[in-house]
Amino acid sequence: MPLFGRKRKDEPEFVAEPPAPLAEPPQVDENGLRSMADHRDYLLSQVEELPPFGQQLLDAVGLSLCEDIVTTISLPGFDNSAMDGYAVMAEDVAAASEDRPVTLPVVGEVAAGQAAQHPLSPGTAMKIMTGAPLPEQADAVVPYENTDRGADDVRVFEPSDRGRHIRRTGEDVSAGELVLAAGDRLDARRIGLLAAIGKDKVLVRPRPRVVVLATGSELVDPGLDLPSEQHIYDSNSFLLAAAAKAAGAQVFRVGLVGDDPDQVRQVISDQLIRADLLLTSGGVSQGDHDVVKQVMPELGSCDFAAVAMQPGKPQGFGLIGDDRTPMIMVPGNPVSAFVSFETFVRPVIRKLMGVTPYTRPVLRCRAAKAIHGSFGRMNFARGVVSVDADGGYQVELAGGHGSHLIGDLSRANALVIIPREVEEIPAGHEVDVWLLDDDQ
Amino acid sequence: MPLFGRKRKDEPEFVAEPPAPLAEPPQVDENGLRSMADHRDYLLSQVEELPPFGQQLLDAVGLSLCEDIVTTISLPGFDNSAMDGYAVMAEDVAAASEDRPVTLPVVGEVAAGQAAQHPLSPGTAMKIMTGAPLPEQADAVVPYENTDRGADDVRVFEPSDRGRHIRRTGEDVSAGELVLAAGDRLDARRIGLLAAIGKDKVLVRPRPRVVVLATGSELVDPGLDLPSEQHIYDSNSFLLAAAAKAAGAQVFRVGLVGDDPDQVRQVISDQLIRADLLLTSGGVSQGDHDVVKQVMPELGSCDFAAVAMQPGKPQGFGLIGDDRTPMIMVPGNPVSAFVSFETFVRPVIRKLMGVTPYTRPVLRCRAAKAIHGSFGRMNFARGVVSVDADGGYQVELAGGHGSHLIGDLSRANALVIIPREVEEIPAGHEVDVWLLDDDQ
Repeated sequence: MPLFGRKRKDEPEFVAEPPAPLAEPPQVDENGLRSMADHRDYLLSQVEELPPFGQQLLDAVGLSLCEDIVTTISLPGFDNSAMDGYAVMAEDVAAASEDRPVTLPVVGEVAAGQAAQHPLSPGTAMKIMTGAPLPEQADAVVPYENTDRGADDVRVFEPSDRGRHIRRTGEDVSAGELVLAAGDRLDARRIGLLAAIGKDKVLVRPRPRVVVLATGSELVDPGLDLPSEQHIYDSNSFLLAAAAKAAGAQVFRVGLVGDDPDQVRQVISDQLIRADLLLTSGGVSQGDHDVVKQVMPELGSCDFAAVAMQPGKPQGFGLIGDDRTPMIMVPGNPVSAFVSFETFVRPVIRKLMGVTPYTRPVLRCRAAKAIHGSFGRMNFARGVVSVDADGGYQVELAGGHGSHLIGDLSRANALVIIPREVEEIPAGHEVDVWLLDDDQ
Repeated sequence: MPLFGRKRKDEPEFVAEPPAPLAEPPQVDENGLRSMADHRDYLLSQVEELPPFGQQLLDAVGLSLCEDIVTTISLPGFDNSAMDGYAVMAEDVAAASEDRPVTLPVVGEVAAGQAAQHPLSPGTAMKIMTGAPLPEQADAVVPYENTDRGADDVRVFEPSDRGRHIRRTGEDVSAGELVLAAGDRLDARRIGLLAAIGKDKVLVRPRPRVVVLATGSELVDPGLDLPSEQHIYDSNSFLLAAAAKAAGAQVFRVGLVGDDPDQVRQVISDQLIRADLLLTSGGVSQGDHDVVKQVMPELGSCDFAAVAMQPGKPQGFGLIGDDRTPMIMVPGNPVSAFVSFETFVRPVIRKLMGVTPYTRPVLRCRAAKAIHGSFGRMNFARGVVSVDADGGYQVELAGGHGSHLIGDLSRANALVIIPREVEEIPAGHEVDVWLLDDDQ
């Protein structure tokens, strides 16, 4: 076994392994089209959740838990008072009334964070603050408002039944209990619960690092002057970057990479180091300058598909470089890019983050007017959802059909989903929509 | 006017001005209680939107625009092709069919970002890419799929009507048009639109800087050992910090400040420099150790109120320090703190950010079982909303009533709002809820 041995005669020449091919893509229909759901599920099957990462609690807001959390302590951890008042024995105040108050000597005080100095003796009271441990022998609390708030002696005007205003050990959660499970998303209340049981760090899936690029030699960065009448501003990389950010990703907008194959190849190779997902727009259609479609197969295993949807028909996907980093290549029209984001990219980002469900919830609306689809392709029309006179949801289309209408897109608040086999949804009939305003 | 003059005899002694008092607080009812809505509106009237700040587009996602945006360019900026194909004159291909194709010489090519070299002559075609400017004289585009994709000559198999597959200048937005208005919140699509019209920076209201503190000598930071059986972990500052973050704030959790008045005074004074809003929990009730209630009036103008709600009755508000920084002091029970956040703090954060509406939208649900309120106080019960067999929303209470039940709180997905004058909502009747899952 020579450590520095020279090549043996019978050793084969080193050959770079061709990238492992992608899994078999889904079937197409008689027109060579793949269904939207098939394509989405295919992409989801090709990406894996990011590996767990230890995070401080407040850095984990919105992230998905990767471990089951079993509490080692109970909540409450000890019997304690629910009110500011007096710890008593219930039978001592059973006869108390406004007219015939019961007077008890106050033999001490318990504040939160302290233990009572001694057990409560019959016929006495101990001042107690909210959250303070109940003294031994006490079995009820009389709140301030039912007393004269006396210091040496207290006059009690109302009975407190046994157990009244007492929080019992473990009545919220018990030591040994599973309080949160792997896959739970950490909202503010769950963060609060984790703190309450003493956890300061948790294993979560991190925010995916998404690198966004745009191709097209006609594109100019906003803020600059357009060099000619034929140039346009790059809007896609901003739209996609903002959408990825809103979906929970950490975003690097690289922006324009032009139409030069060498440059595109170089930029994408350089970005692999910091990407959990690459996102490009443009260059995947049938045009002669569709550089992404030309270059990417050299860098990894790719799948270019025609999906039975409108807009968003030409779609590209790849596993790129040594780490097989997923890359989604969406078409270059802004509305096509946005619809592709909603249908394919957002679910993939959510899978990387381990946040379920991957897809948006569907809202069922009444069509305020007839809605026309494009038979044979699932249609994602832009719509405005509002509440009608009966308190139900209704939807009306917003603006035109063209996939360049970014102004119309920004005035919509929903995508109206018209199934591929439907040509028209008559007024008053129901239709599914995705509401786009994450927070209104 | 002596620059370094000594005190003149008739000059009055310097006296620190007492802080300007708060505006007159709202009326209370016969029990000395303020209504929830009155208290919320009072707080909202006492805080102002943060001043506008110039931000790069991608740093403005989710923020509120502070200027009207009038576009200086039209979208599209020029007539261009909606497809990859051939620019033609419509009348030249009017007679084209599968059986009798029309053949035209291809006299040039226009890619996106380029201008055509010359106008189109009758009886010719020019290759054109999606987004490329239409050559003069051309009035239709024939997409690749209706041709043989010829290079020197092209055979056209279908007519294209005049204007077909052409995007007209300004059909989306016109130069001089108001595209977005002050107060609009910048989602991904609006960010895309701003980029498309060439804006790279906008005036927005920044994320409010919220400093979160917790008081209580019984509290211990999670991750540490509890020094005694009477100590508990601080959960409130985590819960409030996470909730403020989810609401859009930039959060500094200072955490525990103990129960010592001097220390509380010092920490709060120190934090004013970086706070647009101070948030404390605990110390505002009737307990003898309620340090916040004791200390804050020395640092600013304060209002302590009993609000007719359950939980969350004791509420504090102040305008603190020279800058009159708003401070909201919520009660120390975790569920009370959370309900106070939802009712008062979240609306204030949204006002600071300039995001409307300030309050959560109300969802109307059917009560799956009878729900009991606490007469005379608005009740915020924890509930689980689900979709019933008919596709409508139903709600059921989750867990117990106690305001210490943070485990139960984390299992809920809604706050059920029971008005103060209602004692019971019978099963099947409608009830209002706030859905708590911002993103599911």
